[in-house]
Amino acid sequence: MILYGYFRSSAAWRVRIALHLKGLTVENRYQHLRKGEQLSPGYLAVNPQGLLPSLILDDGAVLTQSLAICEYLDEQYPDPALLPSDPVTRARVRALAQVIACDIHPVQNLRVLKALQARGQTPDNTNGWARDVIGGGFDALETLVAGQGRPYAFGDTPTLADICLVPQMANARRFGVELRWPRLAAIEAACLALPAFAETHPDRQPDAE
Amino acid sequence: MILYGYFRSSAAWRVRIALHLKGLTVENRYQHLRKGEQLSPGYLAVNPQGLLPSLILDDGAVLTQSLAICEYLDEQYPDPALLPSDPVTRARVRALAQVIACDIHPVQNLRVLKALQARGQTPDNTNGWARDVIGGGFDALETLVAGQGRPYAFGDTPTLADICLVPQMANARRFGVELRWPRLAAIEAACLALPAFAETHPDRQPDAE
Repeated sequence: MILYGYFRSSAAWRVRIALHLKGLTVENRYQHLRKGEQLSPGYLAVNPQGLLPSLILDDGAVLTQSLAICEYLDEQYPDPALLPSDPVTRARVRALAQVIACDIHPVQNLRVLKALQARGQTPDNTNGWARDVIGGGFDALETLVAGQGRPYAFGDTPTLADICLVPQMANARRFGVELRWPRLAAIEAACLALPAFAETHPDRQPDAE
Repeated sequence: MILYGYFRSSAAWRVRIALHLKGLTVENRYQHLRKGEQLSPGYLAVNPQGLLPSLILDDGAVLTQSLAICEYLDEQYPDPALLPSDPVTRARVRALAQVIACDIHPVQNLRVLKALQARGQTPDNTNGWARDVIGGGFDALETLVAGQGRPYAFGDTPTLADICLVPQMANARRFGVELRWPRLAAIEAACLALPAFAETHPDRQPDAE
């Protein structure tokens, strides 16, 4: 399999974590987001959204959207599971992942911040925007994980919720968000003690700057 | 089950379609988004994000996030299926749903447009923003559904992709997007010929204005 990614893309990091948890290795290719490489005709032919990540299967089939890719990996390589078997907890793990993947990350990502600057917002303003979006989302997440288990977000194995949370915490730090959510911080620390999270960290990728 | 919704919320509409396809009836409760009812202490105790929809199961368990709710319903009430059985097509259906639920809808919703206006953007500007976000997303969707089947987005039964597409098309119209995507329009027309899509339309809800 071939993974198109970028060291700092938190959506690509999610897939790196899932692959590592499953013990899968892939060929990595990089698209430099700040240089706009993801909008080259060659990459748009792979992924018409011009977003990362994309996963190319051995037969050439292209999968896009990080959560869809993680669910595919979980169905094809079920051990260890990224979703619990209990139906309600399963729905809550997916919901937590989606709070991040739908309501936090896309609203604070580079694409939106650039569009804001094109409409006259200063970099200070757009960084404030990102901090507001992340902070409001994390307030909800801290409540949603309360009482769900330890040390990870939903108990004693990492799930899709942790896979989304850890990259989003890194984004929060990058924007200077004051991390006032003790349970989220404890989940992050537990995850980063695992090779699947630590070795896939943006700073440890070959394309890191 | 109890569904908290709002006639015009496209995320709530997704769940109304899924429930209807499954032949499930629920008690409906409404939170008026423009009046801010979703931010009342009572509703925040149900859904700490203050977003719609929320589904309350018969035992009182609360589920949030429309895609997580649809997947829960699909697992608990498997017939008719909202996801195809082929693993790659399944991943592509989920990806198409996520293009809308992650990259289009949250970036053009009322919450973001209000934040833009609070930063000095005029309503004309924010409507243009919404049109840009929807148009760019639909360009990618038109490519992603090419050759995937007919009459629905992925063949002869509606899937999670259609469930997300039809409400997003309604949003596009509301913002005055010129609908230049023939395949998306054909999918929408096929869906709206089904009671599950037509009867759950915002205009036909009891709280419609």
